[in-house]
Amino acid sequence: MILILTSNTQPGSADFQKLMNHLDALPGIKTRVHTERGDEQTLTELYLIGNTKALDLEDMQNLPCVERVVRVSQEYRILGRHKGDDRPSHFDYNGVRFGQDTFHVFAGLCAVDTPEHVEMMMKAVAAAGQVCTRMGAYKPRTSPYAFQGHGKACLPYVFELAGKYGIKVIAMEITHESHLHEISEALHQTGNPTGVMLQIGTRNTQNFELLKIVGRQTEMPVLLKRGFGITLDESLNAAEYLASEGNRNVIFALRGMKTNMGDPHRNLVDFAHVPVVKRLTRMPVCIDPSHSVGTRAAGPDGILDVMHATAQGVAAGANMVLVDFHPVPTKALVDGPQALLMPELSHFLEDVQIAREAYLKRVELAARYNQQ
Amino acid sequence: MILILTSNTQPGSADFQKLMNHLDALPGIKTRVHTERGDEQTLTELYLIGNTKALDLEDMQNLPCVERVVRVSQEYRILGRHKGDDRPSHFDYNGVRFGQDTFHVFAGLCAVDTPEHVEMMMKAVAAAGQVCTRMGAYKPRTSPYAFQGHGKACLPYVFELAGKYGIKVIAMEITHESHLHEISEALHQTGNPTGVMLQIGTRNTQNFELLKIVGRQTEMPVLLKRGFGITLDESLNAAEYLASEGNRNVIFALRGMKTNMGDPHRNLVDFAHVPVVKRLTRMPVCIDPSHSVGTRAAGPDGILDVMHATAQGVAAGANMVLVDFHPVPTKALVDGPQALLMPELSHFLEDVQIAREAYLKRVELAARYNQQ
Amino acid sequence: MILILTSNTQPGSADFQKLMNHLDALPGIKTRVHTERGDEQTLTELYLIGNTKALDLEDMQNLPCVERVVRVSQEYRILGRHKGDDRPSHFDYNGVRFGQDTFHVFAGLCAVDTPEHVEMMMKAVAAAGQVCTRMGAYKPRTSPYAFQGHGKACLPYVFELAGKYGIKVIAMEITHESHLHEISEALHQTGNPTGVMLQIGTRNTQNFELLKIVGRQTEMPVLLKRGFGITLDESLNAAEYLASEGNRNVIFALRGMKTNMGDPHRNLVDFAHVPVVKRLTRMPVCIDPSHSVGTRAAGPDGILDVMHATAQGVAAGANMVLVDFHPVPTKALVDGPQALLMPELSHFLEDVQIAREAYLKRVELAARYNQQ
Amino acid sequence: MILILTSNTQPGSADFQKLMNHLDALPGIKTRVHTERGDEQTLTELYLIGNTKALDLEDMQNLPCVERVVRVSQEYRILGRHKGDDRPSHFDYNGVRFGQDTFHVFAGLCAVDTPEHVEMMMKAVAAAGQVCTRMGAYKPRTSPYAFQGHGKACLPYVFELAGKYGIKVIAMEITHESHLHEISEALHQTGNPTGVMLQIGTRNTQNFELLKIVGRQTEMPVLLKRGFGITLDESLNAAEYLASEGNRNVIFALRGMKTNMGDPHRNLVDFAHVPVVKRLTRMPVCIDPSHSVGTRAAGPDGILDVMHATAQGVAAGANMVLVDFHPVPTKALVDGPQALLMPELSHFLEDVQIAREAYLKRVELAARYNQQ
Repeated sequence: MILILTSNTQPGSADFQKLMNHLDALPGIKTRVHTERGDEQTLTELYLIGNTKALDLEDMQNLPCVERVVRVSQEYRILGRHKGDDRPSHFDYNGVRFGQDTFHVFAGLCAVDTPEHVEMMMKAVAAAGQVCTRMGAYKPRTSPYAFQGHGKACLPYVFELAGKYGIKVIAMEITHESHLHEISEALHQTGNPTGVMLQIGTRNTQNFELLKIVGRQTEMPVLLKRGFGITLDESLNAAEYLASEGNRNVIFALRGMKTNMGDPHRNLVDFAHVPVVKRLTRMPVCIDPSHSVGTRAAGPDGILDVMHATAQGVAAGANMVLVDFHPVPTKALVDGPQALLMPELSHFLEDVQIAREAYLKRVELAARYNQQ
Repeated sequence: MILILTSNTQPGSADFQKLMNHLDALPGIKTRVHTERGDEQTLTELYLIGNTKALDLEDMQNLPCVERVVRVSQEYRILGRHKGDDRPSHFDYNGVRFGQDTFHVFAGLCAVDTPEHVEMMMKAVAAAGQVCTRMGAYKPRTSPYAFQGHGKACLPYVFELAGKYGIKVIAMEITHESHLHEISEALHQTGNPTGVMLQIGTRNTQNFELLKIVGRQTEMPVLLKRGFGITLDESLNAAEYLASEGNRNVIFALRGMKTNMGDPHRNLVDFAHVPVVKRLTRMPVCIDPSHSVGTRAAGPDGILDVMHATAQGVAAGANMVLVDFHPVPTKALVDGPQALLMPELSHFLEDVQIAREAYLKRVELAARYNQQ
Repeated sequence: MILILTSNTQPGSADFQKLMNHLDALPGIKTRVHTERGDEQTLTELYLIGNTKALDLEDMQNLPCVERVVRVSQEYRILGRHKGDDRPSHFDYNGVRFGQDTFHVFAGLCAVDTPEHVEMMMKAVAAAGQVCTRMGAYKPRTSPYAFQGHGKACLPYVFELAGKYGIKVIAMEITHESHLHEISEALHQTGNPTGVMLQIGTRNTQNFELLKIVGRQTEMPVLLKRGFGITLDESLNAAEYLASEGNRNVIFALRGMKTNMGDPHRNLVDFAHVPVVKRLTRMPVCIDPSHSVGTRAAGPDGILDVMHATAQGVAAGANMVLVDFHPVPTKALVDGPQALLMPELSHFLEDVQIAREAYLKRVELAARYNQQ
Repeated sequence: MILILTSNTQPGSADFQKLMNHLDALPGIKTRVHTERGDEQTLTELYLIGNTKALDLEDMQNLPCVERVVRVSQEYRILGRHKGDDRPSHFDYNGVRFGQDTFHVFAGLCAVDTPEHVEMMMKAVAAAGQVCTRMGAYKPRTSPYAFQGHGKACLPYVFELAGKYGIKVIAMEITHESHLHEISEALHQTGNPTGVMLQIGTRNTQNFELLKIVGRQTEMPVLLKRGFGITLDESLNAAEYLASEGNRNVIFALRGMKTNMGDPHRNLVDFAHVPVVKRLTRMPVCIDPSHSVGTRAAGPDGILDVMHATAQGVAAGANMVLVDFHPVPTKALVDGPQALLMPELSHFLEDVQIAREAYLKRVELAARYNQQ
C-alpha cells in the first residue's frame, strides 16, 4: 500500500510525526519513506509493507498528511501502475525529459574504439539536431578471448567530445559496480560536460547485486535491458530491484528474445511488448533494433530491416531508440555488421519521424473514439 | 533453373518443340512446364530440375523461345526471389489484386455461429467500404471435445450473405481436403456470389499432404499461416509445396510464435519478419494480430494491443490483415475474448490507414535516399 | 463420467436396457458406449458427456450393471488416469503386448530404400531375438523437392520380408488417410504376414482430421509422436482425438523439442517427461532417440549420445524405443548421419538391457520404501 | 596453441629461458604461463595466443622443455578437449576428488533457515555416509521483496556444523564478489572445519565480471550452472572465463532450460547434454534435478519425477548431483515444494546407486565392443 502525502509535507512537522506514530503502531506493517525533490515541490510517498490486506482504505485516507492511498498489486510495487495510480511516468535528467510521452533517439557506437570515430559520431549526431548518443566502454562478450571494451581509459575523451558537441546524455553499459565510480569520477574530472544513462545489458538483467548497487545511486538514470531468455514479468521484477533501492529513474529496453525462431534475424524482435510495458509500469520504453535484428539486410522496398523494426516499435509508442552506427563498420571491434553508416543517419531519423508522427496521430484518433 | 519464355510462346510451335527436344536430351535434367494465362498474354516458364549446375547460363539463354534464364537457389524455387528475378509478386482473384504492393483488411468472424451474426458482420464490413472478410467454418481445436465449427452446413448462407453485401473474397480455413470440394460445391450451388481464399492454419503448416492437394487446384488462392513452432525457413518451404504442385497464388501469414516469452500476449508477435518474407519470396504477406496478441488489453494511450500489433505489421509493409470481430463476443463459440467489437471497426480501419500511409511515406523516403 | 459395467454385460439384457433408459432420461447428458472384446471377457464402458457435475456418484453406482463409476477430470477423458481409475494401461496386438509395464525395441530403417536393405535389417533384428521393427514408406520432408519415400510400392516386399523373419509388428508412419487403406490392402494381399503400428509424425500431431480418421479404425494400434513445438498437454489432447473416435490402442512417443537450446543435438531431448506421460495417462510411452539426438557423436566413454539418450529414457520407465539403423548409412535416402550401423545392434540391445534392468530394480526399491 | 612442458621444468632454468626468448621473438604471439603444482610434480603449460595458425606444429615440438603441443580449436581453449589432448579431467579439493570419472551426491538445503535445520540435514547426510552437501546462504530471487538468504550471518554455524559431522565440501551459491571474502573469512575464523565449492547460479552464468573475480582465486573450486536461456556453447564459454583467469577447478552443472515446453516440470530437463559436456570439455558434470523438475509429483511406479530425472543424468555419466532436501518443507523459506524429505534420503541414495552401477556397466560394455 502506498500513502501519497500532500505535497511539501515536512518530515519534521507534527502531523507527519502523528502519522508515523500511527503507522509504527500497526501490527506486522513496516514503513519505507521515499522522497522525490523537484524544483518546485517535494513529494513524499510512504510504502507500507507486510500485512496490508488487513488495512482499511478509508481509514488510511483519513490519516494526517495523506492525500491519496493506492493499494498496490503484488508485483512492481514502485514502478508498476496500480488502480487509481496517477504517479508520474517521466523524469528529467541533465535538462532532458524522459517519459512515456517523450521520444529520443540514441544513435552511437556499440563499442568505443578510437577518439576519431567517437568524434565523427558525436559531430554527426549533433549536426542532426540530437542531444543523446550511445557509447560502449565496457563490453560483455561471450568469449573471454574477445575484445572487452576500452573501459575507463576512454571515458575522458568520450565525455569531453560529448561536451564539445552539446550531447546531454550518453547511454553507456556497465557490467560491474566499479564502473559506476569510474564514470562518476571521469565525469567529475572532465567538469561534467555531459550526462550518463547507465545501461544494464541483457546478460545482467537478473544480476540482482549489480541492480541493487546501481539502484542505490540516484545521480544517473538507468536503462535496463530485458533479459533475452526470461519472461517479461521476470524482467519487470528486475527493474523493480532498482526502484526498491531508491532509483526510480528507470527506462526499460526491449531488445529481442533469444530463439532460432527469429532467424534470419539475430533475435526474435519483441516490440509488440512496447504497449504492454507502458500498461504494466510507469517506465518509458526503449527499443534496441540493432541487437534485435542484427543484420543489414533490406527488403525489396529498399528499407533496411533495422529501420522496419524501429518503425514498428515507434509506431506503437516507444519512447527511446538505441541504435548502432559506425563510421567504418569494417573496422568496428564489436557488432560491425549490424551498424548503420554515417550517411544513413539522416535517413534513419526522418524514417523514425514518420513513425513517430503516425503514433501521435493514432493516439489522437483513439482519444477521439474513446471519448464517444 | 528457370527458363522464362518470350510471352505468348505457343506449345505447339516448331520453336517450342525444338526447345523441348533439346532439353529432353540433356542428361539428368527433368523439365516441368508452368503456364500462367493472363487477360492479355500467356507466360510460360520451364523449370529444369536435376543436375542444373552443369548447365551453362549463356547456352541456355541462346535456346529458341527463351527470353531469360534464372538460376534458382536451392530453396523456394518457385516462390522465392532469385538473383535477377523479376517475376511478378502479385495475382488477381475475383476482381481483387493481391500483391507485395497492395493492402487489404479481412475483418470477420473467427468462427461462424449464426446467420444473424454473419449478416451483422458482412453488413458492417461492406458499410466500411471493404470487399474482403474472414469466416471460419472448419475449426481445428486442441481438445476433441470442443466446438469444431459448423462445417459445410453454414457455407450456403455465408456465401449468399457475402454476395448480398458485395464481399469479393472470404478467407476461410480448411483442415481437410474434403472441405475443398464442399466449398467449391457450395459456391457453385449458390451461383458463385463471392470468392474464397483457402486458409491453412498453423497446426497444418507442415501437413504436406493437405498442401499438395490444395496446391493442385488453382481455382482459389491460398493463405498459408506460418507454423508457430518451426523456423521461418521451414514455413516458407511449406509454401513451396503449394507452388510446386501448381498453385502460385499464395499469401503467407505471420501469426506469432508459440512461447511463454510472449506472455501476457498469447504468442510472441513476429511481425518484424514482414520485410524478411517479402525479401526472400514473392508472396504478399498477411499478419494476424488477433491470434498473435490474443487479448483485448489496451495501453495507457487507450489503444488496444491488437491495434498496436496491427500498426506495427502495416508500418513495415504488410499487405493483408486478418482480424477477428464479433457482434457479441460473449456469445462467440471460439476465441471470443480476443475479438474486436462492431463499433470498433471504423476506428480499426482508420488506425490501420494511418499505419499504411506511414509505410508508403517510408517507401518514398527510402527511394529518395537510395537514388542518391 | 465413466460407468464401468460388470464384465460380460450383454447389450441385449433387460438390465442393460433399464440402465440405458435411465441414462437417456437424464437432462443434458449424452451417452457413448465403448466395448472392449478380449479373449475371455467383454468389458463395456459408458461415457456420460454433458452436465455430469449434476450427477451424484452414489446414485450412479447403484444403477443396474454398473460395477464402478469414475468421475473424469476435464482433460484426456478416455486415455487419462483419473482418481480411482484402474482401467488397464496395456493392449495386445498381433500376439505382442504393449503396456506401461512392457518393453520393446523397434530398430529399423527410417526410410525404406531397397529390398536388400530391408532384408538385411529384418534378418539382423530377427537374429537379435526381436519381433518388432520400424520401416518408413511415407516420409514427410521439409522441402517438396526432397525424397518423399517409396510409398505403397514398397509395402508388399516389406510385409513379406517381415513375415519371412518372424517380425510381428512394424511401426510405419502415415501422412495421409489413403495410406491407411494402402497398408490394409497390402497386408491383406500378402496374407497378413505381419502387423503394422500406424505412426503419426510430429508435423501431424495436430492434424486433427488425420487423427480422427485413424482413430476410427481399430484394426491397427497407433503410435503418436509428440508435437515438437507445442506443450505436452496439447500433444496429450491430440492423442485423445484418436481415442475419442474409438481407437484406444495408442502409444505416445517423445522425440525431443525443437529449439536451438538443444544444440549440438538436433532437438532438446525431453525424456524426463516419460514418467509424466505415464502419470497423466494410461498410454505406454515410446522414446525416439534417433530423431531427438540426430548425431552419431560419442562421449569420451565411447558411448554414442544416441545410446545415452536411450538409456535415460529406459532407466525412467520408457516402454518402447524407436531407433534408426541402416546397413549403409551413406546410402540412406533420409537421415543417414544419425543411423546406427548393423554391427552396433547387439551393443545397442545389451546397453538398453542394462538400463531396463536398472529401471526394474528402481521400481522394486521404490515399492519396498513405499510399503514402509 | 598449448605447449605442455616436461614435468618439473624449472622457470629459472636455462632451457626455459631459451624457450621463452624464442616465443617472445615470434611476431603477433603472446604467451601466458600456467603452472599446476601437485604433490609430486609441477606441470607447466604455455598458452600461445594470437596468430598461431602461422606456427608449425613440428617446429614447436622441437623447442627445449616442450613435451607435447596441442593445437586448440577456437573455443574453450583451456577447459576444452582438443585433438590429442590428454590433460587431466579431474582435481582434488579438501581430500575429495572431482573428475569425469568420480561420483558425488550433494544433498542439502536450498536455503539455510535455522541452525536446527542445518544440523538435522548435516547429521542425516553424514549418517548416510556422504561427505558433501549443499547449503544456500545467498539467494537470488526474482522479486526484490522475497527472502534473499541469511547471508554471512549463517556462515559460522553452517561451517562449524559441517566440521562436527565430517562434511568435506559444501556447495554454496554466491551472487557477489564480496561473498567470496565473507566465505573465506568465516572458514578461517571457524578454523577451516570444511571446504566450500563456490556455486554460480543460472542468472549469473553470463555475469562475466563475477566469473573473472571468482576465477582469479584458486583456493575454492567453482560449480557453474548452465544459463537457462542461452545455448550450451555460450554457457561453456562462460566456464572458460573462470579458467582463463586461472581457476581450472570448474564443474559444470545442467539444471534445465527455461521454456513452457517443459511443463508440468518447472524447466525442460536437459540431462541428455551430460555426455556432450564431457565430450567438449574436461569438466566433471553435475546435474540439478530439484530445480529442473521443481515438483514432488511421482509416476504410477511410485518413483518421484525428481528421482527419475536424477537416474537419467547418472545413467548417462553425471559426476555430481545437487539435490534439495528439507526437514520440514512447509517451513522452508525457498523452494519448499520441490524438496525431498529426510526419510527419503536413503531411498534417494540407493536409487542413485542403481543408476550409477548401470552407467559403469554400460561403460564396460562399450569398452568391450569398442575393442573389437
